[in-house]
Amino acid sequence: MISPALSATLPANARQPPARAHHGGHPMRTRAAVAVQAGKPLEIMDVNLDGPKAGEVMVEIKATGICHTDEFTLSGADPEGLFPAILGHEGAGVVVEVGEGVTSLKKGDHVIPLYTPECRQCPSCLSQKTNLCTSIRATQGQGLMPDGSSRFSTLDGDPILHYMGCSTFANHTVLPEIALAKVREDAPFDKICYIGCGVTTGVGAVINTAQVEVGSTAVVFGLGGIGLNVIQGLRLAGADMIIGVDLNDDKKEWGERFGMTHFVNPKEIDGDIVAHLVNMTKRRGDLIGGADYTFDCTGNVTVMRQALESAHRGWGVSVVIGVAPAGAEIATRPFQLVTGRTWKGTAFGGARGRTDVPKIVDWYMEGKIEIDPMITHKLKLDEINKGFDLMHAGESIRSVVEF
Amino acid sequence: MISPALSATLPANARQPPARAHHGGHPMRTRAAVAVQAGKPLEIMDVNLDGPKAGEVMVEIKATGICHTDEFTLSGADPEGLFPAILGHEGAGVVVEVGEGVTSLKKGDHVIPLYTPECRQCPSCLSQKTNLCTSIRATQGQGLMPDGSSRFSTLDGDPILHYMGCSTFANHTVLPEIALAKVREDAPFDKICYIGCGVTTGVGAVINTAQVEVGSTAVVFGLGGIGLNVIQGLRLAGADMIIGVDLNDDKKEWGERFGMTHFVNPKEIDGDIVAHLVNMTKRRGDLIGGADYTFDCTGNVTVMRQALESAHRGWGVSVVIGVAPAGAEIATRPFQLVTGRTWKGTAFGGARGRTDVPKIVDWYMEGKIEIDPMITHKLKLDEINKGFDLMHAGESIRSVVEF
Repeated sequence: MISPALSATLPANARQPPARAHHGGHPMRTRAAVAVQAGKPLEIMDVNLDGPKAGEVMVEIKATGICHTDEFTLSGADPEGLFPAILGHEGAGVVVEVGEGVTSLKKGDHVIPLYTPECRQCPSCLSQKTNLCTSIRATQGQGLMPDGSSRFSTLDGDPILHYMGCSTFANHTVLPEIALAKVREDAPFDKICYIGCGVTTGVGAVINTAQVEVGSTAVVFGLGGIGLNVIQGLRLAGADMIIGVDLNDDKKEWGERFGMTHFVNPKEIDGDIVAHLVNMTKRRGDLIGGADYTFDCTGNVTVMRQALESAHRGWGVSVVIGVAPAGAEIATRPFQLVTGRTWKGTAFGGARGRTDVPKIVDWYMEGKIEIDPMITHKLKLDEINKGFDLMHAGESIRSVVEF
Repeated sequence: MISPALSATLPANARQPPARAHHGGHPMRTRAAVAVQAGKPLEIMDVNLDGPKAGEVMVEIKATGICHTDEFTLSGADPEGLFPAILGHEGAGVVVEVGEGVTSLKKGDHVIPLYTPECRQCPSCLSQKTNLCTSIRATQGQGLMPDGSSRFSTLDGDPILHYMGCSTFANHTVLPEIALAKVREDAPFDKICYIGCGVTTGVGAVINTAQVEVGSTAVVFGLGGIGLNVIQGLRLAGADMIIGVDLNDDKKEWGERFGMTHFVNPKEIDGDIVAHLVNMTKRRGDLIGGADYTFDCTGNVTVMRQALESAHRGWGVSVVIGVAPAGAEIATRPFQLVTGRTWKGTAFGGARGRTDVPKIVDWYMEGKIEIDPMITHKLKLDEINKGFDLMHAGESIRSVVEF
């Protein structure tokens, strides 16, 4: 759910068309779903995959989720989208080979690919204030490995681009060592792949970005694959009141399944949704109302404004998680900020992948968070386009492809 | 510098015209500058002042600053402005009488009036997350004391409204006990009156709202009476790089006087001010740039956006201090937040008045902050309209009226 547009501020030279792929050692064939061009279904085919170069790791992907961000790019709506590419950024698998100098991983390790790497060396990592590692940002935004080349190519030798540094819609892929979280080996791939994006984004937004305290009130706008994870993050953090907002009444049951305490369908209330939510969140003795924390999981800029303005005067924090259409802007009166509301955003839930993702896998295995009920559909790679159809139809929370 | 529009969300009944003043005990005459109507000069006249009721305190004002917020209301631009009223909210004086039940103040105490009170009892004060005490908010927004009446009236007995709960443009005024900070008696009134708004707003935005750390980089937009105090707040907090931005080159010397390390006049650079500032704030090894903290002290919504977008990806915090024109909106791409920038605002510098204002007076007396050079003009009450003229002409940092 991170925006591919994270590369929007790349240096100018990073926007040039990729050079023809350099083919390193150990080439092999693997099966992949290739995004040949924007707006077309993925094409399932054999592709060539070069072995890992220095600092890189080859992973056999065992399972991958299909996320809205993959759809955003495939649709052509993503202005930073590049083709042909192998999409997919929410996977889990096993290390099959490590390149020169790789020390933290070995063959057989179970891993989750990280579209937000954690190098622990760059100014961003060293700041200890952000998870947005910048060490490989420029090449990742170009669909390339850090050395500026791709490991994927067609059987004819034409390069195919990586995507978000992951490309989990392939049975095998290559990633930098710093873009892999090592996780416990008893965790099921077809569930923990979801931790590669949706779970961590939602739960992390609550824990890392908003830092919600026990007893808080919260509103979650949009009860899809991210919103439900925000809800379970709030439950985990001990929030008292967890209000879910969605235009689809079917989401009420879904929200309640993960800890939502109240449901609001904006179509079914009289008057303004902000006033309604502010009133709902009034505490004893409080003349004002408003939630301690609000979360936008819709990507709709009007909803982002409603989320901010539903936050409590004096201390309410609103977190933007959803990815807005290209060029869309958020707006509000500055008075909303001057009177104490804070507007923030989160990418990958503020999680430092190699440090935090293994913990979230532990939480799943210990039953602190749930994943199984959210995996509504299981597909084989050949059926991957059906996963996009289910998403468009609003029938899935998460479809997972198993290899 | 708090927006009078803080009362914008008052209950409907609070917007009705004020009832005719109830005249309590001990009426006296005092000299005041009365805002008779919007857009007209203040009229200097004798007015009646009733004695303090229960929980109230009468103060002899010794000095008062003239702030842009007074001008905002007097001009008629403030949609919440009410007339006739006695403006002024940046004062210092001596307690002359206390009402029934007042325990924390006695005759002779030196005090600074607080347009943001601190009751220590309301949900806002008890939250420990905001300084925006709500205990007397509704009546204060109506220009009345907490019991719903005014203590001021014309010699004919017609009520005159209070302003921001302070009305420091009168030689004597009445305030609630919770709206007075008791300060040390050796501090000069003609300097510490400025702590009643400008100093606390600027220094507090740095210390309380942004919580700037030693070694930070910062940009301050607008080097007026607030911006210069942000700069000295940054110096106090140990910021490494303090960039001031102003369209007026004369402000360079002013900024440097209080700790500014770099000056930028947007008219004198090539290209975009945001790109210029982002480049200026690049640290060793950092590919990106952007300031750790940025502050808008202009009230211009375009500048507020520039301030946000000049903040560092991943962790930059931008604080809105300036008061925007009625109805003006801030906007940005949500991508700016998703990539880790935080947009906040501050009112009265996040200071809890009774707790924090006495400390700021101590800092002034100990030489940790400066005030004297910012008081560019001293006036008598009869000359108060000249203070507004000096402000309009950009000739003053702060004009202070001494009684």
